[in-house]
Amino acid sequence: MPRNGHRHLGDPQGKLLRILRHAARVFSEKGYEGASIRDISRASGIPLAGLYYYCESKQKLLYLIQLYAFRSILDRLEEKLAGSSDPLERLRLLVHNHLDYFLSHPAEMKVLTHDDESLAAPYREEVAQIKRRYYAAALRIFENLRKAGGVRHVNPRVAVLSLFGMMNWIYTWYNPRVDPDAKRLAEAMGQIFLNGILNGRGAGERAPTGARPRVRRTARAERYS
Amino acid sequence: MPRNGHRHLGDPQGKLLRILRHAARVFSEKGYEGASIRDISRASGIPLAGLYYYCESKQKLLYLIQLYAFRSILDRLEEKLAGSSDPLERLRLLVHNHLDYFLSHPAEMKVLTHDDESLAAPYREEVAQIKRRYYAAALRIFENLRKAGGVRHVNPRVAVLSLFGMMNWIYTWYNPRVDPDAKRLAEAMGQIFLNGILNGRGAGERAPTGARPRVRRTARAERYS
Repeated sequence: MPRNGHRHLGDPQGKLLRILRHAARVFSEKGYEGASIRDISRASGIPLAGLYYYCESKQKLLYLIQLYAFRSILDRLEEKLAGSSDPLERLRLLVHNHLDYFLSHPAEMKVLTHDDESLAAPYREEVAQIKRRYYAAALRIFENLRKAGGVRHVNPRVAVLSLFGMMNWIYTWYNPRVDPDAKRLAEAMGQIFLNGILNGRGAGERAPTGARPRVRRTARAERYS
Repeated sequence: MPRNGHRHLGDPQGKLLRILRHAARVFSEKGYEGASIRDISRASGIPLAGLYYYCESKQKLLYLIQLYAFRSILDRLEEKLAGSSDPLERLRLLVHNHLDYFLSHPAEMKVLTHDDESLAAPYREEVAQIKRRYYAAALRIFENLRKAGGVRHVNPRVAVLSLFGMMNWIYTWYNPRVDPDAKRLAEAMGQIFLNGILNGRGAGERAPTGARPRVRRTARAERYS
């Protein structure tokens, strides 16, 4: 997580962050509806009064878990994207960033993908907003790839949401004992998605700058296999 | 749904089927935990006593919804596959069959993808079994495509579960007002997935029979755009 993540939450000692981590684990195991603040108190060893001091309701815990997780994903993504202007590389960074966060935060992943509907107003709209920001960032990455040339005719919304589907669905099947780690999973999914949308004629190499060397698509693609 | 679907359930008048449809809608709107048999009685107009005559518990309703939906998907798939021996076509049939069922049964789709964990023993294991059958069928289709040649080096489990992720995740975003219908969505996702796993050298055309005409991959692929 971002080194200063707890400061975003006005949480100088990081205690709220610790509570959120325990709460995410309890929600992911019992489901949001089935879990109680008491369960979180038991799991975290923090007395009920302490929990209520930091967070006045189960709804607010769910909200903060989601808000904090999406902010972390977005912050990390921006940090990574700052280092690359290559449209293909930027899409790979998006995939790796998403899977890396999810696989290192399995409880939060489950809560984000499974329990988002349990959130009521006004929290719901706030989380929806940050999700839209994330989706918009992914769409921009896709559109820049398209402008660079080599992307086939495909509905951008369907393409980007298919990519999120591939990545988010892992919460139902991923098993660290048999499945590839985040890096290799990102390579595999990035390969399927990129080959899936590229038309094999230049493969995003016709960027406006024209400065990068042209690489044959097969060579690009095999990097992932 | 299969014409004789209700017979599978020992339900000659199709009344249980009607109950299951209402129950799926109620579960999809209120969440399984938040819904009661009374809600289903209200939604369906069937008195409580009538509901209990057909189905003794909410768990059994959830079980029957899932069992019946997976059976329908599998039955339809087998029917469609019986008409094609082409490995590429068979994968397209799998995609279209899945999306077609899901988009015409949005409530069941939500229950299948979102509420599967609410099922307890012994129902849980039975549904898990039929899901494994479905996954195994998809894996066979993928493996046959691979044997036919033209599939890149890719982890089969990751590939097949990525495809299911793309398809299943639509329950969170699909909007019939703006998104493509089942046929065109299946074409778009089929294109992304097939181009994603094919290496562009023969694209599944080197089937052992050798009887089918060779079609250039671009022509194949553009069919989908």
